[in-house]
Amino acid sequence: MYSFTNDYSEGAHPRILQAMLEANLIQNTGYSLDAHTNHAIELIKEEINCREADIHIIVGGTQTNLITISAALRPYQAVISPSTGHINVHETGAIEATGHKVLSVPAADGKLTPALVQEVLDFHTDEHMVQPKMVYISNSTEIGTQYTKAELEALSRFCRLHDLYLFMDGARMGAALTSPVNDLTLEDIARLTDVFYIGGTKNGALFGEALIITCDRLKPDFRFMIKQRGAMLAKGWLLGIQFEELFRDHLFYDMARHANAMASMLRDALTEQGFSFAYDSMTNQLFPIFSDQIIETLKQHFTFNMDRRIDETHSAIRLVTSWATTEAGVREFVEFIRSL
Amino acid sequence: MYSFTNDYSEGAHPRILQAMLEANLIQNTGYSLDAHTNHAIELIKEEINCREADIHIIVGGTQTNLITISAALRPYQAVISPSTGHINVHETGAIEATGHKVLSVPAADGKLTPALVQEVLDFHTDEHMVQPKMVYISNSTEIGTQYTKAELEALSRFCRLHDLYLFMDGARMGAALTSPVNDLTLEDIARLTDVFYIGGTKNGALFGEALIITCDRLKPDFRFMIKQRGAMLAKGWLLGIQFEELFRDHLFYDMARHANAMASMLRDALTEQGFSFAYDSMTNQLFPIFSDQIIETLKQHFTFNMDRRIDETHSAIRLVTSWATTEAGVREFVEFIRSL
Amino acid sequence: MYSFTNDYSEGAHPRILQAMLEANLIQNTGYSLDAHTNHAIELIKEEINCREADIHIIVGGTQTNLITISAALRPYQAVISPSTGHINVHETGAIEATGHKVLSVPAADGKLTPALVQEVLDFHTDEHMVQPKMVYISNSTEIGTQYTKAELEALSRFCRLHDLYLFMDGARMGAALTSPVNDLTLEDIARLTDVFYIGGTKNGALFGEALIITCDRLKPDFRFMIKQRGAMLAKGWLLGIQFEELFRDHLFYDMARHANAMASMLRDALTEQGFSFAYDSMTNQLFPIFSDQIIETLKQHFTFNMDRRIDETHSAIRLVTSWATTEAGVREFVEFIRSL
Amino acid sequence: MYSFTNDYSEGAHPRILQAMLEANLIQNTGYSLDAHTNHAIELIKEEINCREADIHIIVGGTQTNLITISAALRPYQAVISPSTGHINVHETGAIEATGHKVLSVPAADGKLTPALVQEVLDFHTDEHMVQPKMVYISNSTEIGTQYTKAELEALSRFCRLHDLYLFMDGARMGAALTSPVNDLTLEDIARLTDVFYIGGTKNGALFGEALIITCDRLKPDFRFMIKQRGAMLAKGWLLGIQFEELFRDHLFYDMARHANAMASMLRDALTEQGFSFAYDSMTNQLFPIFSDQIIETLKQHFTFNMDRRIDETHSAIRLVTSWATTEAGVREFVEFIRSL
Repeated sequence: MYSFTNDYSEGAHPRILQAMLEANLIQNTGYSLDAHTNHAIELIKEEINCREADIHIIVGGTQTNLITISAALRPYQAVISPSTGHINVHETGAIEATGHKVLSVPAADGKLTPALVQEVLDFHTDEHMVQPKMVYISNSTEIGTQYTKAELEALSRFCRLHDLYLFMDGARMGAALTSPVNDLTLEDIARLTDVFYIGGTKNGALFGEALIITCDRLKPDFRFMIKQRGAMLAKGWLLGIQFEELFRDHLFYDMARHANAMASMLRDALTEQGFSFAYDSMTNQLFPIFSDQIIETLKQHFTFNMDRRIDETHSAIRLVTSWATTEAGVREFVEFIRSL
Repeated sequence: MYSFTNDYSEGAHPRILQAMLEANLIQNTGYSLDAHTNHAIELIKEEINCREADIHIIVGGTQTNLITISAALRPYQAVISPSTGHINVHETGAIEATGHKVLSVPAADGKLTPALVQEVLDFHTDEHMVQPKMVYISNSTEIGTQYTKAELEALSRFCRLHDLYLFMDGARMGAALTSPVNDLTLEDIARLTDVFYIGGTKNGALFGEALIITCDRLKPDFRFMIKQRGAMLAKGWLLGIQFEELFRDHLFYDMARHANAMASMLRDALTEQGFSFAYDSMTNQLFPIFSDQIIETLKQHFTFNMDRRIDETHSAIRLVTSWATTEAGVREFVEFIRSL
Repeated sequence: MYSFTNDYSEGAHPRILQAMLEANLIQNTGYSLDAHTNHAIELIKEEINCREADIHIIVGGTQTNLITISAALRPYQAVISPSTGHINVHETGAIEATGHKVLSVPAADGKLTPALVQEVLDFHTDEHMVQPKMVYISNSTEIGTQYTKAELEALSRFCRLHDLYLFMDGARMGAALTSPVNDLTLEDIARLTDVFYIGGTKNGALFGEALIITCDRLKPDFRFMIKQRGAMLAKGWLLGIQFEELFRDHLFYDMARHANAMASMLRDALTEQGFSFAYDSMTNQLFPIFSDQIIETLKQHFTFNMDRRIDETHSAIRLVTSWATTEAGVREFVEFIRSL
Repeated sequence: MYSFTNDYSEGAHPRILQAMLEANLIQNTGYSLDAHTNHAIELIKEEINCREADIHIIVGGTQTNLITISAALRPYQAVISPSTGHINVHETGAIEATGHKVLSVPAADGKLTPALVQEVLDFHTDEHMVQPKMVYISNSTEIGTQYTKAELEALSRFCRLHDLYLFMDGARMGAALTSPVNDLTLEDIARLTDVFYIGGTKNGALFGEALIITCDRLKPDFRFMIKQRGAMLAKGWLLGIQFEELFRDHLFYDMARHANAMASMLRDALTEQGFSFAYDSMTNQLFPIFSDQIIETLKQHFTFNMDRRIDETHSAIRLVTSWATTEAGVREFVEFIRSL
């Protein structure tokens, strides 16, 4: 059964595995202090056009989130997140486990705005309440939406005005940047945020998220934080090698573009057949709404996750495409939809 | 200027201070292992008619909340609270600082119901999300409302069915139990919850909250938790003496009844003059709605806190009465209202 | 049976209780924002001759330690303590519960020196180990010893050179400052440390430790920390009133001097009778060594704690005197010793 | 320059990489719920002869330690470790960051005994101190020593008698089990401990530690703990594939045996030349003592870590061999030693 369950159901792009094989028996310095990692960092610095950034490559997204947030905040400070934010819902309280409240803000499209953040600031007035200090956003978001340059500029200005750190979770950064409606670059994002990351796990690496810190106050002693949270990989060059391949040429973008193209084929077919969507996504996650009856039939042919119930007889499902999604898989789904 | 700011603006009932004076130069065992504390515990056990309870008297409410919740939960477990709950809003993230997420549930009247808790359980389905394990409620609530016996019985049944701990914050327990609409007793509450406390600070003690644990699983090693959080008072008999006085006869109830009577005088006058309230409280906290103009005038004669803006020209304020509120103070306010 | 168990077996100096009684029915602002607290802070600022200090009065010592240390350190930083330090042994892991390692250093006399701290620094070389950032000392120490001015100056110089915070636990500050061998003043201590506190609980207050922060980096948002740890007393003026009395004239010193004088009477008698001591204390804690047989007899007439076994037939016990220790109690002990 | 710095300087055994390549484009369920992981778990259960064990494969050792310890302990409980234990020295306070004290016990050979643990229990008598609840040991230890069956049986009996969890860090389990002086099997270890792990990272896997929980009380909800600490690998089958290869036949043992054989060649040559060792190791870590002059020369030809200074002119260095250490590399070192 073909799976549209997520964008991390397959391993890595063959070039990445090939590079690992070639380096396999060469002795390396451990803990990400090796030449591959240094080279990967150089490539990313060029890509973001920011030589002063501190860059650390970390195995997973939840790790990266909890390390970054707990490194940035003093004990009584809190992070603001859209209610759909990964840190708010899907990390088993990882942020709270480091001692910090996540201030959850309902946002229909999964995105924060200056107005929404302002409301949080207005509510938190004294030492009997947590002190909001960081704004957490995702691009693309957990529901497939993405920030425009104007939106990110407005949010960035607001955060700087109010001395809030702006942190972008880029687990699905590739999907956002290669979406047909995108107008942001990694260079923009490096300029407009204080810290963000570029996701490898969901875009063709075995694992790995490249965390980029541009705000000077967040840089000191960051490796202590990584180590303390158990996130310093002994054979750290494995992370370096993967990001070398992703950014040696355009592999990172090529894979994301493929994922989005596969999603577009699905979206077009669904729209053509008159189905609607729970969220307005131009990236690799789609949330079509089907009757329960159709969903039951779909389940016999494809694997996917349920999103949420829409009404008594309809639900939204989640379809995810990836760098590895085959046109054959997509075509099978499209034909199925057309046959309904 | 007379103050209706809160119910902890004065010291303690003179009988309590007198008892402290009498014991002052007698050598006592420290850390709540003294005879006064033992006696106070006996008096409370009689009052709740539960000999098997474990009882600890702790200086403050935030301490009591954070100790109880962090003692009860495993690291990945969360506590469900009404969005207005003290732990959710007014404790500077104290619960999160012990590592646990507070799952905030909007509830117009500040009270949780089985249906509201069920929604939280339905949403939390697997190990990618926190595991809800405790339900936190307050009686009376932060907005002056209170649980009926039927409501508490329903919630208790639901929690036992779903293996959730039920924890009642009783910082304003006196106000709830002596309210004209109350039908609960401390014995009922001991039977229907797993752990709850009886507030002294807001009902005529200098400080002190008596925590009553009836659930066996929550009892072991509790004094370790109290000590670790810095809440084991060296001269613990000061807590014991205060609760001896509160429960030696009916002082606890008498003081709360007075606070409620003073609030009733205010409520009646406000109703009579046609003012409405933001919340429907029959306890010692009132939330009348006034025009901004009236509020400005009020501020010149009385001290109180703002609650929230109602519309462009009106806000709710909070008036709190206490065991020490004088009839003269109340009459001054009533006359002022009648003169408007 | 007369008790030499500790210096917090009685309540408070009568003047303190009297002041509480007088203020009892006056409405006060809560949370230590009242006039009594402000006045107490002014008195302490004069005493330490440092107008720029931030001062917070907190109920207990463990609270004060855990708040101060967790406010000062980033997550991967550690505090260095003598192995006998209160935070290392007698706080149920309160510091670790805030996330920080206590680096324990054996020190025969309970005191840290630059050389001892240097060894810790030498050992901690990279991000695989915690980063030592604070030095915790007590004066007087848990074994009754105390720092000379020269010792504290040397340690202070060393800490500033190595960018370590120097924190002095002054739960028994009174006993240290009024000891016959003392050459330090509160002004010296304010100048030589970054943060320290003056203990009330063990010197004649019901409770209360006045924390004095002189290092600017430790000042911001400290009230958030106090509140989050459940240590912001609702009726905070109770703390203020007590320190007003302690420092309005010389009550603080007078009470400590009395405790030391009572200890001297015991020490002289013990020395005269040929007993030796486990530690060399000139303050209000004595650690005489007795045969097991004598200890058994002593237990029939006095209450005290055991310290530790010295050899197969001897142990050290701990005798503590206080502001409230009576000459009659001391004389009874002295006569008993002479009768052996 | 040939490196004896550690046993994780190369990638993985070619068979492991080959297996990853073969599975690369097959769609898998994420988060270690895949068939490879299930198969690896079955193979390990056979190896330990314990069908009831719960097994989780986790990326790294520090992660595994902090998850296991924080899952097992209540907030006020502590773990006992030899002072040389990895959790005590080389994890940047990772255990304390989860809230728990590490009780460090000096042990010359890096191993705990019932007598050493008894001393810790004797010292911790009441709720003013942490409660020791877990004993942490490593096999082989951080200084290359290892437990005999008799030693482990004695420690296991003691722990069960005192209701202490016994946790064995097996990051270098392979080296211990294939050492010429070993008399333990994985089946013995599963029977004698409550929880332990089998290290992949330091024995020929890219990464991965297989945690085996035999104590029923430690099993519930363990995946919540893994997820919350950011340790649930999205592409979890990568862990499964590696342990399938390690335990499909005897690859795990073969690789460790090779590492030990290489160490034996070094040990024999050093002994033959009259050099002594700081610790008595029969595994893949050696700690020979050299004059500073020899060390300087060695550094020009080989890479290795310093261990510690022995006297004014001598230090111990650490030489580590691995599954990938070549006989040529070893021979080069041996010849160098013989030429001195």
